[in-house]
Amino acid sequence: MDSGRGKLPRDLRRRVLIEDIAPQVDGGLHPAKRVLGDTITLSCDLVADGHDALAGAVHYRPVDATEWRRAELVPEGNDRWAARVALGAIGLWEFRVEAWVDVFATWRRGTAKKIEAGRDVASELAGGALLLREAAGRAARTEAMLLEDAAKRLTYAAQSVKQRFSAATDPSVTVLMARYPDPRDATRSDRSFPIEVDPPLARFSSWYEMFPRSTGAAGKHGTLRDCARRLPYVQAMGFDVLYLPPIHPIGTSFRKGPNNMLDAGPEDVGSPWAIGSAEGGHKSVHPALGTLEDLRALVDDARGRGIEVALDIAFQASPDHPYVNEHPEWFRKRADGSIQYAENPPKKYEDVYPFDFECEAWEALWAELVGVFLFWCDQGVRVFRVDNPHTKSVRFWDYCLKEVKRRHPDVIFLAEAFTRPKVMYALAKAGFTQSYTYFTWRHTREELTAYLTEITAPPVSDFYRPNFWTNTPDILPEHLQFGGRPTFIQRLVLAATLSSNYGVYGPAFELMEHTARAGSEEYEDNEKYQLRAWDIDREDSLKEILTLVNRIRRENPALQANGITFHPSTNEHLLCFSKESLDGQNVVLVVVNLDAHHVQSGHLELKLAALGVPEGESFQVHDLLAEARYLWQGGRNFVEIDPGMMPAAIFRIRRKVRTEQDFEYFL
Amino acid sequence: MDSGRGKLPRDLRRRVLIEDIAPQVDGGLHPAKRVLGDTITLSCDLVADGHDALAGAVHYRPVDATEWRRAELVPEGNDRWAARVALGAIGLWEFRVEAWVDVFATWRRGTAKKIEAGRDVASELAGGALLLREAAGRAARTEAMLLEDAAKRLTYAAQSVKQRFSAATDPSVTVLMARYPDPRDATRSDRSFPIEVDPPLARFSSWYEMFPRSTGAAGKHGTLRDCARRLPYVQAMGFDVLYLPPIHPIGTSFRKGPNNMLDAGPEDVGSPWAIGSAEGGHKSVHPALGTLEDLRALVDDARGRGIEVALDIAFQASPDHPYVNEHPEWFRKRADGSIQYAENPPKKYEDVYPFDFECEAWEALWAELVGVFLFWCDQGVRVFRVDNPHTKSVRFWDYCLKEVKRRHPDVIFLAEAFTRPKVMYALAKAGFTQSYTYFTWRHTREELTAYLTEITAPPVSDFYRPNFWTNTPDILPEHLQFGGRPTFIQRLVLAATLSSNYGVYGPAFELMEHTARAGSEEYEDNEKYQLRAWDIDREDSLKEILTLVNRIRRENPALQANGITFHPSTNEHLLCFSKESLDGQNVVLVVVNLDAHHVQSGHLELKLAALGVPEGESFQVHDLLAEARYLWQGGRNFVEIDPGMMPAAIFRIRRKVRTEQDFEYFL
Repeated sequence: MDSGRGKLPRDLRRRVLIEDIAPQVDGGLHPAKRVLGDTITLSCDLVADGHDALAGAVHYRPVDATEWRRAELVPEGNDRWAARVALGAIGLWEFRVEAWVDVFATWRRGTAKKIEAGRDVASELAGGALLLREAAGRAARTEAMLLEDAAKRLTYAAQSVKQRFSAATDPSVTVLMARYPDPRDATRSDRSFPIEVDPPLARFSSWYEMFPRSTGAAGKHGTLRDCARRLPYVQAMGFDVLYLPPIHPIGTSFRKGPNNMLDAGPEDVGSPWAIGSAEGGHKSVHPALGTLEDLRALVDDARGRGIEVALDIAFQASPDHPYVNEHPEWFRKRADGSIQYAENPPKKYEDVYPFDFECEAWEALWAELVGVFLFWCDQGVRVFRVDNPHTKSVRFWDYCLKEVKRRHPDVIFLAEAFTRPKVMYALAKAGFTQSYTYFTWRHTREELTAYLTEITAPPVSDFYRPNFWTNTPDILPEHLQFGGRPTFIQRLVLAATLSSNYGVYGPAFELMEHTARAGSEEYEDNEKYQLRAWDIDREDSLKEILTLVNRIRRENPALQANGITFHPSTNEHLLCFSKESLDGQNVVLVVVNLDAHHVQSGHLELKLAALGVPEGESFQVHDLLAEARYLWQGGRNFVEIDPGMMPAAIFRIRRKVRTEQDFEYFL
Repeated sequence: MDSGRGKLPRDLRRRVLIEDIAPQVDGGLHPAKRVLGDTITLSCDLVADGHDALAGAVHYRPVDATEWRRAELVPEGNDRWAARVALGAIGLWEFRVEAWVDVFATWRRGTAKKIEAGRDVASELAGGALLLREAAGRAARTEAMLLEDAAKRLTYAAQSVKQRFSAATDPSVTVLMARYPDPRDATRSDRSFPIEVDPPLARFSSWYEMFPRSTGAAGKHGTLRDCARRLPYVQAMGFDVLYLPPIHPIGTSFRKGPNNMLDAGPEDVGSPWAIGSAEGGHKSVHPALGTLEDLRALVDDARGRGIEVALDIAFQASPDHPYVNEHPEWFRKRADGSIQYAENPPKKYEDVYPFDFECEAWEALWAELVGVFLFWCDQGVRVFRVDNPHTKSVRFWDYCLKEVKRRHPDVIFLAEAFTRPKVMYALAKAGFTQSYTYFTWRHTREELTAYLTEITAPPVSDFYRPNFWTNTPDILPEHLQFGGRPTFIQRLVLAATLSSNYGVYGPAFELMEHTARAGSEEYEDNEKYQLRAWDIDREDSLKEILTLVNRIRRENPALQANGITFHPSTNEHLLCFSKESLDGQNVVLVVVNLDAHHVQSGHLELKLAALGVPEGESFQVHDLLAEARYLWQGGRNFVEIDPGMMPAAIFRIRRKVRTEQDFEYFL
């Protein structure tokens, strides 16, 4: 018979199949994201014919390490195998899987059964000795001697079968035989799978956005030094990222006046996103804000207070940007030779020149833009909020972010993309550490439940880290315009507990600024176009509730990651969910009244297993907002929430261990 | 700034990302399965920055064709794109995807908006002319002239803007511009994705298993000619596959007697799975059954009646198989030099020598086994039932099935693997056309619903085609032992309507053979070890209900594929599900009383959309088993099923179209 193919590849003989390797994003094309200190479960299916014993290992390393580390795969049932691996360094890691038929374990299991059944196993013992000697040939010298010795004992005719066989079950032999399998017939995953390990701040962060130019004395242009004087205020509220809109020189051509008017007066400050003037571009500080040195001082001062300063990088130029003269080849031309301004026909944005990422000189342009990030990294900045990344080629970001991370693996990039869901996901896969979300427009229980369910489970949660914003300079959502104080608090609690990363734009947020230009979600007298003086000491400020919520987040690891369980309630206005810390020790249950205007009450139908509460046992819920404690039993519990008092409850679950003396809160 | 990398690859400039291509199995490693005549939807996400118009195409072909065919991708919303492609030949196909920014469509959309807004578009029209001329450079001669001409009209200053722009919206220009995109910046899927196109019998088949040696006159060894005389009986019941256990010579060493006794007498016929004797092996016909010529005649006769003969291929040898002497190197040796028999310690199976698929001479062994299939293909056989494939290397099957299909793409392989779920799936991915299932052990509504939900939806349904068996010579399930006639009918209806492929082992099935060896699921006086004479004309035979069920299957395309919807009912004994034909024209609703002993009644809560019935309209359900018709309205309908009469109803849904004259059944 003619096989029609000539020599067959040897790997056809490899009997173990490795399938469904996890975590992976798009078959290993993009890294799965984790943070420093995580212990990660790497898993796969190992599938083979028959019932032979299998074995396998994960090989893993930081990509720039020369040595691979090895972790044994352990069976978890249903042909699933897993290894737990600690990620002890920031940066890109990779892992691959190897698996084989464990001939020695198979032999040992079968021989043990035959011995038990009283069958003659002389030939089996000889077979086992052969396997030990083969392994000795692969082992280091002293280990080889131990294996040779076991082989001898196995066939030592003077001893009983039981004594001889014990040479094969010796723990040290077991360890060595696992260490030196026959490598010829091992199956290897045909690629390695990347894992990006970010700083912990990538997963758990509380952002405060603030315009530095509005931190000066009333009526005066604030500076970075004024901004530094505001640091204790931000620190006291418990934020750990202070995000500043662009700090670069602002163009004067077509400058916008207050409320986005076309006719700016000579005193108008312009939009910080109209970047570039004779005074410099993306690598300069606006002279009215101060100097590079002031920025470095601000970054240092903040870091000393546990706050990272995040800069806003917006890749576009005002007509006055130095690039326009120095590199006209980076912009698209109109037929009359002038540079193409931004437009969304029929609308024109003559104050903004977008870069042409596909221009002939694209390589020089891309390198320059990478250089912008590197420049600010050199000033000590480690967090960037990237403006409108979805209007630039995704492949540019893939390239750019990798180039920056290659040099500074600890940098965090937040993508400000409000666009189609698949584009948002593509940007996250391309390397953005965190992403803006649709949270701002999700109000009802059904909307929030569906959205969170999608983004908090794999595959999405492996590459997309949501950052929930209550408001931004671009978005004053309708509910904040009309819902009053209860809605501000309700949205704060939702953002800060549904998502481990969240942010507010202040002082507009804590001062409950809620006046929009008619019919829009745009702030009236928006700071984007003018200076604002904020009275941060106002009586009715929300700073105390912000402080409390941020403290609850810091003290409850459950709120520092995004695994979430929704619990039914009999009242559709009551949203109820719980989160558990990665180690299972901390469980938080949140109930929010989504109706800002009326008292709502109803029964929760708690999934007790998700709370770690045994069926039938009573447990205490401790409302960390109201400092109240209740004793509950079973899943059905009544709640009533008055939004005028406090529109939400954040319960810490305190389990009863055995007797009343063992209540956690007795301790 | 130093990019640190030198020249960047040009494909970084390609702005479109192609993601989530479907159908695909394990990232394109294995083919998705379809049948001849299917029109298949090939789909993917096309993701790009900004709002430019995108375009894309699927390229597809039978793998042995030199030319690729092309189908345009059409947007389906949410960045999903799809093309419908007809699969007009049996065999392996492949497809790949290409996508690009449609510069011309983007230009045209923007320019149209500017014209509408009354803006000056002279420079835009010049830009459009340039795009037309570039495309002309890529087009064939007459087409190029048309495009050049359109470019001229676009810039013809004597005409109005509207007239000039109309040159760009001309349908023939639109078609040509779509045909000749700039290929430089197109993104291509980095691999092609395979699709296996099988004969229609692969998806819709009704199997009848029968021992040819039991078709003779009572007490006499039946022959293939006797078997041929049984064809009209099988045909009349409506089966289209007749599956015969192995027809090869049977070994005498360690031959098993009746009821699997170790001491066979000289008259005992042995198990057909103990393959090989001095009279031949896997390429021979047992002399007591007849000759190769008889087999060819049986295959031809059956095919003339619309029945394919399926042979059973069991890759193992009796100690008397010619291979044992001719190729001892294909078997594993014990330490004493004897050939290793099969064992599952401490049990021994000394009548079975398994092949050693990993032996040094594996290439010759594998080629020989491929040759076994090819030999029977040469006799005209096109359907094989493969015995215990899960005890042989999965990679062997991957190789073997591909080798056979390369020569005979119309061959169908049924995997008789009852093993761990992931091994069953791995075999299906390796190329088995159909697979045995756990159906035989799934009884309750919950079990059946969970199992069907798993196997009838992607990813599983793309590679795994279930074949539901009511019984086999190895399995007389407990419910058939004790459930009586209602259970036989109930299990028949379940198998034949839940799955488009199903089978029965007869005449044991239609004669309701139900005596098992005590405490087992094994038939008493099993045909595996002895001749049986069956009275197929017995009064109480189920042949008429088999005939009816098979006719209903043939007449209702809904039952010829596996898309399934389960509907709730208020009585847990009532299983209710519906299926719809691929064209949506035929809808069948099945209700089965899973309790064989009592009348059960309750309300169905029908999902009307799955039945194609508009909310609020009345519709007729036509019970094809009882030939009864009922008029229903709305989703909640009462049913009562008496298992003593008929344990199931198979309703064809007959929709009311507009008035009473438009009822389908008026026609």
